[in-house]
Amino acid sequence: MQRFWVTSKGFKYSVNVGRGAWRVFRDFPQDCYSAILVLTEAHLWERWGKGFLRESGIKNSQPLFIPSGESSKSVRMVETVGAELLAKRADRRSLLVAFGGGVVGDLGGFVASTYMRGIDYVQAPTTVLAQVDSAIGGKTAVNVGAMKNLLGTFYPPRLVLAEPEVLTSLDERSFRSGFFEVLKHAILAGPRLFSELEERASKLVPKQAQNLGGLLARAAKVKVEVVSRDEREADLRRVLNLGHTFAHALEEASSYKRFLHGEAVGWGILIVSRLAELLGLLDPAERVRIARLVRQTGSLPGLRGVRASRILDLLPQDKKAVAGRIHWVLPERIGKVRISDQVPMNLVETAFREVQRGGGHD
Amino acid sequence: MQRFWVTSKGFKYSVNVGRGAWRVFRDFPQDCYSAILVLTEAHLWERWGKGFLRESGIKNSQPLFIPSGESSKSVRMVETVGAELLAKRADRRSLLVAFGGGVVGDLGGFVASTYMRGIDYVQAPTTVLAQVDSAIGGKTAVNVGAMKNLLGTFYPPRLVLAEPEVLTSLDERSFRSGFFEVLKHAILAGPRLFSELEERASKLVPKQAQNLGGLLARAAKVKVEVVSRDEREADLRRVLNLGHTFAHALEEASSYKRFLHGEAVGWGILIVSRLAELLGLLDPAERVRIARLVRQTGSLPGLRGVRASRILDLLPQDKKAVAGRIHWVLPERIGKVRISDQVPMNLVETAFREVQRGGGHD
Repeated sequence: MQRFWVTSKGFKYSVNVGRGAWRVFRDFPQDCYSAILVLTEAHLWERWGKGFLRESGIKNSQPLFIPSGESSKSVRMVETVGAELLAKRADRRSLLVAFGGGVVGDLGGFVASTYMRGIDYVQAPTTVLAQVDSAIGGKTAVNVGAMKNLLGTFYPPRLVLAEPEVLTSLDERSFRSGFFEVLKHAILAGPRLFSELEERASKLVPKQAQNLGGLLARAAKVKVEVVSRDEREADLRRVLNLGHTFAHALEEASSYKRFLHGEAVGWGILIVSRLAELLGLLDPAERVRIARLVRQTGSLPGLRGVRASRILDLLPQDKKAVAGRIHWVLPERIGKVRISDQVPMNLVETAFREVQRGGGHD
Repeated sequence: MQRFWVTSKGFKYSVNVGRGAWRVFRDFPQDCYSAILVLTEAHLWERWGKGFLRESGIKNSQPLFIPSGESSKSVRMVETVGAELLAKRADRRSLLVAFGGGVVGDLGGFVASTYMRGIDYVQAPTTVLAQVDSAIGGKTAVNVGAMKNLLGTFYPPRLVLAEPEVLTSLDERSFRSGFFEVLKHAILAGPRLFSELEERASKLVPKQAQNLGGLLARAAKVKVEVVSRDEREADLRRVLNLGHTFAHALEEASSYKRFLHGEAVGWGILIVSRLAELLGLLDPAERVRIARLVRQTGSLPGLRGVRASRILDLLPQDKKAVAGRIHWVLPERIGKVRISDQVPMNLVETAFREVQRGGGHD
């Protein structure tokens, strides 16, 4: 197990990734809390609840279930969970544990940040994506209509506990989908992590997830380092948006049905890599290497029928856009990205159309 | 016009109270914002919108209306306003101006604190209560079911602009109701503000509100000083809860229909004053003086039919309670309160019953 520290103005918390991560909670001052509530999904809790409670040593907690799926990441669910916390007599000194994937973590963080104007919470992520990315950094969010993450807060957890064993019960598609975020981190971090992923990408299977602690920890570390330097979006943190400008548009255009988030990020990476190449920023050989790793990481649901005009329309609504401009995160090479808000839209369209036509093949 | 500064860890903003307060916005860097949205109520905007825009010098703003009344302070309304902001292309660099009373301010602050994870906002309070109290201090909130302010954030505004002229269009009951919060501040602040209020209480009428700038400024200053020393609830800020533990229970027990918030605070002050007297903390003469000023400030809707057992049941749900204990704010004399979580519930009940029986008369 590896431990990293997120430090920023006014707070500090540890991110623990690898076998035995749940046991870190044993050193956490749980007796200081008036109650511990675990926000989770029923099927997850049935499979892992006992093990989590045993390993973490949590005493006297109560689970609180939300339905699976993105639709739980709603304003209405914030209200429902808030009312349930109240019914369970949670007060300002209660602790919320978000035990689940991105939806549970984002929603749980949002609820924690607003319940009685803020209670402590712990992230116990149970998907690849949540373990290397969304559970780290204190961003919380809910969706409004089709607009993903329109409402949210910056609110750091007290602790992040990422145990890879829990990934063994994921279906293969969800499992692989999370590795597109690992890939994103590899492009940001550089050749070592990238090569490691190249070596292992085609052999990734959920049932061997417990052996992935090291890889996941290295991927999580990329996020830890970025958010430690910049808790808010303003500047440095934008690099984490690599592949996401298109990803959000693709998800929205397909009503969040065709692509898992990671898969949309996979497409997003292919498109911005091509865009960077068209701009003369990225060497064609590097672009090919990135595209190959995207393919090895998992197969992507096709882009058939996705209209370029619709996607382009959806882009400027991304909330990282300022006054309509889009800040593009463009790979310059493996290990380096550049942010530019001066990318001509005709090139953006070309990149999208080419990737759509080529199906991601180079 | 008087200006006070709220300073706390990491931020600073001015609270401007008195004739001409709206003009302070002219020195605000409005050109830095991609858009200015004014959250308000239609009837208010119709009466005061033009004057506000002229005085403040705000250019190119768009109003965004919410229905009047407490029911707008809901999670659902957060979603509606969020979607409307998006439709009006508000982005992270947009500014929200909350132009209204406590509901607009609390909701507007909550929306601002969560829209795209936080945008700047300005409070332009238009009720007595909002001008001296709720618009100051960065507490935002919405209700969940009957639970007032269950969800909220701490999120400071950029500026508070309290122009007393806008109070002239209030109906007399709402207008007077706000002065129970002024009275609360007078008990906290001491004899000078208290005597001033005694002198003016029976003559308070909306149509002369423009002459109240000085009094309102002195009342607002009490809040400014408390929140500057303690942005969060933890400790000092608790004194502001004077009269509110009962107030919230009374409001909830009557489904927010019988009492305006200030009126419930008026009752709350009467009850905790009696409680403090029963505990031997408050001199009977001081208690009588406080009770007299409550009556002069305005007539209170009666407590007939409000069951003591129901009220007592509702008390520990107040979110300032920790693990079921209630932190009572008890006046020791005009100018001094004490916080105690060791008050026997039978005395609490006695105080309530006596005040209920006496109708607030001493």
